[in-house]
Amino acid sequence: MTFSALDSELLGPLFAADAMRDIFSDRNRIAMMLRAEAALARAQATLRLAPPELAASLEAISPGNLDIEALGRDTAIAGVPTIPFIKAVREKLPKDLERAFHKGATTQDIVDTALVLQMRDGLQLIERDLARTVTGLVRLARKHRATICVGRTYGQHAVPLTFGYKAALWATGIAESTAELPALKARVLAASLGGPVGTLATFGDKGPALVEAFARELDLAAPPIAWHALRGRMAEAGAWIAIMLGTLAKMAGDVVHLMSTEVGEVAEPHVPGRGGSSAMPHKRNPVGSTVIIAAHEAAKGYVTSLIDAMAVSHERPPGLWHAEWLALPQLFGLASGALREAVAISEGLTVDTERMRKNLNLTQGLLFSDAVASALAARHGRGEAHRILEEAAGKGRDEGKHLRDALLGDPKLAKDKAAIERAFDLAPFADAGALWTDRALEKIDKRNI
Amino acid sequence: MTFSALDSELLGPLFAADAMRDIFSDRNRIAMMLRAEAALARAQATLRLAPPELAASLEAISPGNLDIEALGRDTAIAGVPTIPFIKAVREKLPKDLERAFHKGATTQDIVDTALVLQMRDGLQLIERDLARTVTGLVRLARKHRATICVGRTYGQHAVPLTFGYKAALWATGIAESTAELPALKARVLAASLGGPVGTLATFGDKGPALVEAFARELDLAAPPIAWHALRGRMAEAGAWIAIMLGTLAKMAGDVVHLMSTEVGEVAEPHVPGRGGSSAMPHKRNPVGSTVIIAAHEAAKGYVTSLIDAMAVSHERPPGLWHAEWLALPQLFGLASGALREAVAISEGLTVDTERMRKNLNLTQGLLFSDAVASALAARHGRGEAHRILEEAAGKGRDEGKHLRDALLGDPKLAKDKAAIERAFDLAPFADAGALWTDRALEKIDKRNI
Amino acid sequence: MTFSALDSELLGPLFAADAMRDIFSDRNRIAMMLRAEAALARAQATLRLAPPELAASLEAISPGNLDIEALGRDTAIAGVPTIPFIKAVREKLPKDLERAFHKGATTQDIVDTALVLQMRDGLQLIERDLARTVTGLVRLARKHRATICVGRTYGQHAVPLTFGYKAALWATGIAESTAELPALKARVLAASLGGPVGTLATFGDKGPALVEAFARELDLAAPPIAWHALRGRMAEAGAWIAIMLGTLAKMAGDVVHLMSTEVGEVAEPHVPGRGGSSAMPHKRNPVGSTVIIAAHEAAKGYVTSLIDAMAVSHERPPGLWHAEWLALPQLFGLASGALREAVAISEGLTVDTERMRKNLNLTQGLLFSDAVASALAARHGRGEAHRILEEAAGKGRDEGKHLRDALLGDPKLAKDKAAIERAFDLAPFADAGALWTDRALEKIDKRNI
Amino acid sequence: MTFSALDSELLGPLFAADAMRDIFSDRNRIAMMLRAEAALARAQATLRLAPPELAASLEAISPGNLDIEALGRDTAIAGVPTIPFIKAVREKLPKDLERAFHKGATTQDIVDTALVLQMRDGLQLIERDLARTVTGLVRLARKHRATICVGRTYGQHAVPLTFGYKAALWATGIAESTAELPALKARVLAASLGGPVGTLATFGDKGPALVEAFARELDLAAPPIAWHALRGRMAEAGAWIAIMLGTLAKMAGDVVHLMSTEVGEVAEPHVPGRGGSSAMPHKRNPVGSTVIIAAHEAAKGYVTSLIDAMAVSHERPPGLWHAEWLALPQLFGLASGALREAVAISEGLTVDTERMRKNLNLTQGLLFSDAVASALAARHGRGEAHRILEEAAGKGRDEGKHLRDALLGDPKLAKDKAAIERAFDLAPFADAGALWTDRALEKIDKRNI
Repeated sequence: MTFSALDSELLGPLFAADAMRDIFSDRNRIAMMLRAEAALARAQATLRLAPPELAASLEAISPGNLDIEALGRDTAIAGVPTIPFIKAVREKLPKDLERAFHKGATTQDIVDTALVLQMRDGLQLIERDLARTVTGLVRLARKHRATICVGRTYGQHAVPLTFGYKAALWATGIAESTAELPALKARVLAASLGGPVGTLATFGDKGPALVEAFARELDLAAPPIAWHALRGRMAEAGAWIAIMLGTLAKMAGDVVHLMSTEVGEVAEPHVPGRGGSSAMPHKRNPVGSTVIIAAHEAAKGYVTSLIDAMAVSHERPPGLWHAEWLALPQLFGLASGALREAVAISEGLTVDTERMRKNLNLTQGLLFSDAVASALAARHGRGEAHRILEEAAGKGRDEGKHLRDALLGDPKLAKDKAAIERAFDLAPFADAGALWTDRALEKIDKRNI
Repeated sequence: MTFSALDSELLGPLFAADAMRDIFSDRNRIAMMLRAEAALARAQATLRLAPPELAASLEAISPGNLDIEALGRDTAIAGVPTIPFIKAVREKLPKDLERAFHKGATTQDIVDTALVLQMRDGLQLIERDLARTVTGLVRLARKHRATICVGRTYGQHAVPLTFGYKAALWATGIAESTAELPALKARVLAASLGGPVGTLATFGDKGPALVEAFARELDLAAPPIAWHALRGRMAEAGAWIAIMLGTLAKMAGDVVHLMSTEVGEVAEPHVPGRGGSSAMPHKRNPVGSTVIIAAHEAAKGYVTSLIDAMAVSHERPPGLWHAEWLALPQLFGLASGALREAVAISEGLTVDTERMRKNLNLTQGLLFSDAVASALAARHGRGEAHRILEEAAGKGRDEGKHLRDALLGDPKLAKDKAAIERAFDLAPFADAGALWTDRALEKIDKRNI
Repeated sequence: MTFSALDSELLGPLFAADAMRDIFSDRNRIAMMLRAEAALARAQATLRLAPPELAASLEAISPGNLDIEALGRDTAIAGVPTIPFIKAVREKLPKDLERAFHKGATTQDIVDTALVLQMRDGLQLIERDLARTVTGLVRLARKHRATICVGRTYGQHAVPLTFGYKAALWATGIAESTAELPALKARVLAASLGGPVGTLATFGDKGPALVEAFARELDLAAPPIAWHALRGRMAEAGAWIAIMLGTLAKMAGDVVHLMSTEVGEVAEPHVPGRGGSSAMPHKRNPVGSTVIIAAHEAAKGYVTSLIDAMAVSHERPPGLWHAEWLALPQLFGLASGALREAVAISEGLTVDTERMRKNLNLTQGLLFSDAVASALAARHGRGEAHRILEEAAGKGRDEGKHLRDALLGDPKLAKDKAAIERAFDLAPFADAGALWTDRALEKIDKRNI
Repeated sequence: MTFSALDSELLGPLFAADAMRDIFSDRNRIAMMLRAEAALARAQATLRLAPPELAASLEAISPGNLDIEALGRDTAIAGVPTIPFIKAVREKLPKDLERAFHKGATTQDIVDTALVLQMRDGLQLIERDLARTVTGLVRLARKHRATICVGRTYGQHAVPLTFGYKAALWATGIAESTAELPALKARVLAASLGGPVGTLATFGDKGPALVEAFARELDLAAPPIAWHALRGRMAEAGAWIAIMLGTLAKMAGDVVHLMSTEVGEVAEPHVPGRGGSSAMPHKRNPVGSTVIIAAHEAAKGYVTSLIDAMAVSHERPPGLWHAEWLALPQLFGLASGALREAVAISEGLTVDTERMRKNLNLTQGLLFSDAVASALAARHGRGEAHRILEEAAGKGRDEGKHLRDALLGDPKLAKDKAAIERAFDLAPFADAGALWTDRALEKIDKRNI
């Protein structure tokens, strides 16, 4: 299993996507650390703070040249991966470049920047899958804009709406999360460079220019001040992922319920071999939704750690920074698996419109009681209208009758016939559902979310 | 104590500010629910969906006209406060307006909108205090832009920097949180109106216009679709508050340590009677920082609940929505107390620059070992430079000598004298600290964060 | 609303029970602080460390004699409630007893001990309601020990079991939590007395005897060492409450689903006026379960804070201890409301056995496919049995036939007739459900959990 | 990095111990699943529910015979690892044993039981390291039972105590956690066997006997009822680990502070190469404490997920159960790394008693102000005593004098000379510290915690 199911050869493929796994592999982390060092060397060269050959020498080193297992052993002693990493890289450099390497920088500069580079690639995957999910749901919503089904509150049938409206709601939530991504990226994708305590004193007044050159080399933002001890960025990134998973979990929870045997209004896309049971051959379990729900469930805890980890002491803390390493990459892993399933659901959900119609009738007309009460109130007053309604509902229950029939059979309501029939008309519900669906889809389309 | 210390007559004044307490009082909640109903009536009147007199009748009702205790008793039965509230309000209305009241709306429309109105006022208080805190810290940073002190990593002396730099870092973190507030408000301060299941079917094609009119009446945003079942807004608001508290907690944690007996570099502003001990008359405890740290500590948990509460089922969930009521207002309470203390610290922190100087010397020059190593490496090579340094450091320790003296006393280093003396020069550290302080303050000033 | 919905006059009655509210009232907290001081005085008198009159003087003071609002104002300055409290109490004492009062004790001794006294009373209420809930569920389980209904996994119909089994499972979970209460109380209900830094140095070698006398006076345990800075007790108490709420939430979640319109197998006990909707008169919402689910939802976050708060620094920390005050009492509040509802559900749940029977048939026999597969495998082999089953299931679906009929209609299966009929027999499922129900109830009864 | 730092080749060796890594490896998980299946076969054979040869055939299969990568690929489709696992194992069995294999069992029986077996081994490692840590701390406490040092509250010097007392407090906290382990194991180490929905209907009235035989085969407890849907066990195990980490974090936080440059009273055991800095050669960072603090920080979040995951729906939930896989093993990983460091600290902490003495003097006698106030109050009354003390303290500050000298220099206090000198006597503080240290160690020794 490995400690994290995400990393398990057995369970990992279920919970995380391969492309994300590559980004957060040890190998790629080393690659990103090397890339950060090379960018630093290039930036320093520009400002005549390092010999121009250093960057080329660093670019020639690849993760394959380093013994990751040995680095791991030494990290357990040193307490941070950078110390053995720098030692190992230095050994690969020409003697005369040794002194220039990693000059004026500190562990956190390289580890933070490498993590940000991984996060950038990770966010790109997330963005791609969010877009696909929204597109899939928009199509689904459009198709079912007027497909009438039951609205449910507290698990109870409430009032009819349309399935397109439900899908448009899911799409809107996910599009709202997506809409925040540019601001998040602008905030989070910042280079980290401050030297031992943030002021880059080694470089005197060239510090700010160096940070800007370094950031430019990596196409990252240059922060106003070193963020070694300002971890809001990481907490915001984590919170965004968890909240984004919340929008997926809303959909997944609805799908699980709509797919339940008694409801049966939708089914996750059929994948041969998926969703069966070791004991019950007839089962079709909502595996995709399960992955999404588990991801949402697991994600929250990491946000706690990341918010906590903001209270770092002075210029670098013992422990809180390290807790980020335990939290942040797993959020990306969870997101990748959940989004893979969200894409599949959005593109392939099976909808049983007939069953939706059937379920509308389960309460024999009670679904329309609000409309009926309004209709009767005009002639009979609010109180009397409620009394009539309750009587008819009781009668309906006792005699197994539809509420409309119970009402129409009441001679006292002869004059209300037209009003009663109107109250049971599904068209206004279908129209309202379609109207709001169209409105939401238009706003999503115009990114006016 | 009451269940929440925030609400306790005994402990509440310590943890929350009175102005925020008023906003989240029962009385004000009722007032905001009445305001939402009146705005709905006005909006409906505009669209000829309600008689124009209804709004005036509703505006004439104030929380004082309602028996909150009785409403509470009935809420325990009904499960939501809106049902008894509507009944009580209806009783105060002229008979002929009864039917028009709350027409087509649902519980959540009123409860959500009232909460958003409270949040708007709450965010305004928070914004005001954030601005004051940043202003205070900017002044502090400017004053001490070149005040040299120790930079610390892992609790250890690392390299000198300036106290202004530290204050600028605190200010930057808080300014970064502040900078996100406009986007948060644009997102969160949205009217909630959707009727039973979100589609406002009662109003046919007038639904969207009604939502817009309602939002306009309250000066709130009109959402693309009813957000009864899209709770990202609430989770984002909660996460923002907790992360903002994280930026305060970073400062508070530093202050606690800098104020500790052994360090003694700063003191919280003196308030007569504050920070004493029932047993130890000489104590001066960091009470302001304590309040901030406790708020940060307590806030995280609520974020978990809010992220969790996004996975609502269908059009309204049993339980998750209610969990928001238990979480969100407390975050505002915690923020109000923490910010009150942050303002006071930022405006009144006492700085002992002499002690800062003194502490610089605690390691007898080891603070400069990085600079020394660089200085010696030029002539002796990296490896030999380290060897020399270690030898001198050992000698210094044994003989109680300053590292500089140990080095200068070594005849082999005669030619390095100037380089050694330069390495122990504080000026470059002061300059770098001042440089970055200025840069950060400028960015804060231009809101270029 | 007040910051915490638990403390709101409007919402509090829904979420918390009055008896618990009294225990955690400001007034009662003051009473418990006075009680702790009086017990300390008595204990000191026994050891000739205080004049015997002191205790009597303290016992004569009641919360009503103190101005709680003024204490609150001063707490906001002092940072802890004990300092103004001691000052106020001292003013009520005869001049010559002043010096003896609170001698050698510290703030935390009184605040911690008072909280433990509140917790003791709170745990007693919890224990009473847990016992009632288990009793109610045991009765329910016994009654329905053989009432056949559907077992569901992943929201899908799986295999039949009995409703009694489900109730017995709920009861077992709650009984398991209950069974841990004695150990929890032994651990948590400990007196706190250590003086400024835990060693009670003022009292020399009488320290341990004093702690024991103090504990005896309050009928609390005497800890091996002062627990000012060992907060495991509080974290364990919080975790226990949250986990206990988890066992209730398991039941509540099941009830919500079983009560949903499409399933309709149970209903929460009818309380006039409960569970309606402001917009939909026909609704019957699961209000009790909603309260339980919201409590579970909200509780988790507090556990995080309590576990966090264990990392206190040295002899008393700035902030972490205070975070306990914000967390722990709310857990008791949440527990009280959730348990009130759990008792009601356990004692009054309505069960619709006919609907359970009906729902069994929703899949037209697929519920028995596992049994059928086994039955056919004996004669046809595992692979062939599955093939036959799938074919029959497909045919059943297409022709709207029950799986049994589809199988019995297949001439190739003529010899399997008896085996097929046995496979669709509900009796073994009812028997197995009843068997395990009886076994669980017996273990609960014998407290062999 | 892999998603979890615990699983990273680069970072994992820092955060987790190898022995624990082996327990939670994929290979070992498969081994434990095989062991569960074999035990089930043996148990079934005993009751004549399976042919006796099945167990032997299963025991002959080892993880090496299965293609874990292929199982992972299929798990991503199936949604649970058991389905491909069973298929793969079945293929290795003689044809005639196929039907008997996994008979009447379900996925969760095997996955839960395998996890419990891993947890048993994991708890054994934890127990061993807890015992070593307590032993180390007991030795440390004994040695320093009377070594005077400063007691600190809110980061401020408070009153003297002994370092042995501090170590005894750490030891007590850890011993208290340890003392709960037997009850936890009795509760958690239970076999999971219930078949599709918990009632093991396939086996009729042999179900209970089968569960007991199965449990006996694995030396696990037999639960009163299937715990597929009663997850309290897992939440309790997680909470216990996190709380245990809290007791370690209390120690680690103290060590970090005591090791800080300004305090310098202790140092983590020296390990060559440990705790250095890539930029600052003189640094000696508290790496062991850092690992512990990060583990505590990260652990809390998992407890949230586990408590949440208790609200499973019906007989098996979609998502919540899976979230356990993401949470629980990581808690074991975190515990293993933190305990490795705790053992090292407890056995090798360096104590600088001279520095402790020196730090006692930092406040020039204010540390004794409480004692002085008491001493003077006897003759001068409480109020006047405080006035005298404040005057002397002020004078001391102004003239750089020790409080004792300032007092002794006051002619008005001539008669108080002996009392004053007694008040500054360290002996009572040392005695009290030693007394409580002895008492705590004795209780730890007798397991009377």
